[in-house]
Amino acid sequence: MTRLPIQIKLTDSKKEKPNPEKLIFGKSFTDHMFVADYEEGKGWHSHRIVPYAPITLDPAALVFHYGQTVFEGLKAYRSADGTVRLFRPEENMKRMNVSLDRLCMPRFDEEAALHALTQLIQIEKDWIPTLEGTSLYIRPFIIANEAFLGVAPAKKYQFMIILSPVGSYYKEGIHPIRILVENEFVRAVKGGTGGAKTAGNYASGLKAQEVADQQGYSQVLWLDGVERKYVEEVGSMNIFFKIDGEIVTPAINGSILEGITRKSILQLLRHWNIPVAERQIAMDEIREAYEEGKLEEVFGTGTAAVISPVGELNWGGYKMIINNGETGPVANRLFNTLTNIQNGKEDDPFDWVMELKSELVKLA
Amino acid sequence: MTRLPIQIKLTDSKKEKPNPEKLIFGKSFTDHMFVADYEEGKGWHSHRIVPYAPITLDPAALVFHYGQTVFEGLKAYRSADGTVRLFRPEENMKRMNVSLDRLCMPRFDEEAALHALTQLIQIEKDWIPTLEGTSLYIRPFIIANEAFLGVAPAKKYQFMIILSPVGSYYKEGIHPIRILVENEFVRAVKGGTGGAKTAGNYASGLKAQEVADQQGYSQVLWLDGVERKYVEEVGSMNIFFKIDGEIVTPAINGSILEGITRKSILQLLRHWNIPVAERQIAMDEIREAYEEGKLEEVFGTGTAAVISPVGELNWGGYKMIINNGETGPVANRLFNTLTNIQNGKEDDPFDWVMELKSELVKLA
Repeated sequence: MTRLPIQIKLTDSKKEKPNPEKLIFGKSFTDHMFVADYEEGKGWHSHRIVPYAPITLDPAALVFHYGQTVFEGLKAYRSADGTVRLFRPEENMKRMNVSLDRLCMPRFDEEAALHALTQLIQIEKDWIPTLEGTSLYIRPFIIANEAFLGVAPAKKYQFMIILSPVGSYYKEGIHPIRILVENEFVRAVKGGTGGAKTAGNYASGLKAQEVADQQGYSQVLWLDGVERKYVEEVGSMNIFFKIDGEIVTPAINGSILEGITRKSILQLLRHWNIPVAERQIAMDEIREAYEEGKLEEVFGTGTAAVISPVGELNWGGYKMIINNGETGPVANRLFNTLTNIQNGKEDDPFDWVMELKSELVKLA
Repeated sequence: MTRLPIQIKLTDSKKEKPNPEKLIFGKSFTDHMFVADYEEGKGWHSHRIVPYAPITLDPAALVFHYGQTVFEGLKAYRSADGTVRLFRPEENMKRMNVSLDRLCMPRFDEEAALHALTQLIQIEKDWIPTLEGTSLYIRPFIIANEAFLGVAPAKKYQFMIILSPVGSYYKEGIHPIRILVENEFVRAVKGGTGGAKTAGNYASGLKAQEVADQQGYSQVLWLDGVERKYVEEVGSMNIFFKIDGEIVTPAINGSILEGITRKSILQLLRHWNIPVAERQIAMDEIREAYEEGKLEEVFGTGTAAVISPVGELNWGGYKMIINNGETGPVANRLFNTLTNIQNGKEDDPFDWVMELKSELVKLA
């Protein structure tokens, strides 16, 4: 692993840690953050871990005006014996570079990013909550910070990693959500940025979410932007259907984000010899399967919830109640297996988990 | 006009003004900026004009992660007698609110925004260059600055106006550009954010621009994201075609930005009794018109260039040379009329220009 020198400056005043029973996603942050700077001609430099603090930007910084920004999201888990585990972090770093390419932003060496991340987590390991279902959410992100209003890729960037202790997604056990199929708004289209983890995709999705909220639905199911008939994603998760014994998920097509949980689930299902297919799925097909009693399960997948069963799909007023509104056996098995692998309670046949060795962090 | 109290704090150390012969778009900024804050339950407050300075944001500020941001762009012109002119600024403020709605961000009172803008320009009027073709570029923008990683509309925002003296777009007279018709990447699709002036639209366009640059083209012509056959915009401008005596421009359809220059040009053309049409235009139609010798002129329109004639269109290798690669008579007439109205050299039959009265700015 590349060992780029990281300057470390620890805080003098540690924050009080939040009550692990009352953690709110993305609200509190740890004592330190990782920062690196990029300048054209000089590359990435000044890798450092510093006290978590506000950052200073010129009002003309490109990120505010033309949105050059990319992020990632993953989690660290700590078991009772103190072992810290990361789930396939190298996949996040790989995807980060795919996103950076799409946004005309400079790549960040994947091993260096992983090294930075593990060093930061070593320093902050007391921040990882140990209560069942809790974890430390990790948010690496890159922003264009050159002060220039020209519509062109920036010449200056900042890479940062911040950490936030998060509570259990399911406080009262895994339970299904109600989903509105979105017919008006579009998340992404082929040729756009849907396959990249960039801010604009999330901003454009807020309006549809607002409408769904007002109608009592917790997420929207996005259809393709061209024909408005093929399934893409659910909220900010990938989606799976169990139809007549087969698990089907939309194939990666340029407008769908390639989820790491999605990829892991496909691998698990194949390992279990459950039939799976990655292909186009039309809403008409879902409706037909439902009418024939063959729509057995529906679930979303992502880092936050791992598995999010869907109990109801509302497509323009036509309501489909899936598995009597209860979590199905495949969703349950996937949820238990994945979370057990993440927490070290179950074998890890695919070598997905990275255990953090206790290393002495050298102070600069 | 609403007269919200604006606190004014002037700088102690004025910057040196850049050489008006060597101005680069969006590189240098004036001595002061306007700022206002929003908080849920409290609304917009703390309207102030302060020295231009970096702003401080939490690394978890929503704008960095989920891209809630909206901007506008317009110009102030100063004539030799000192009169300061704005071109239809109320239209920008109206459009800003349309964009804010789409991004689930709080509206800013249009009259209050206009008042803030004129107060700031009064203070900075010595920054408006007077050389032929130069102006003061005005950039109002709003960013979500709440420190929260949840994918939901923020509860805190900041509205700012910054000013940048800009040089003449055409240093050696108006001249045509070469355009690559974009077949791979898509700027926007119906149901997305193409009709809003928000950062994500610009970030997603950078990749196509990079490819065009490499092939020696200065801009791309965007086609619709659904059928990939209808014309949408050129770079970040609207586009017009003169076909057999009629001026045609794509109708506003939800994925095209409704330009204020576009709107003014349509009004001028109708006033001149030149036939105009706002409708869908397929690339096949453009090619056919070209082959029949009926594609008489092509030009882009926007705040930066006002009119940008197109001398060549390259559609997948098929090259169309328009008007012998020279600026056509309609483009020329529109450019001269619009810039003369903006500069006060010609009558303003539509009451487009707002002249800034010299008011005493009260210091707080």
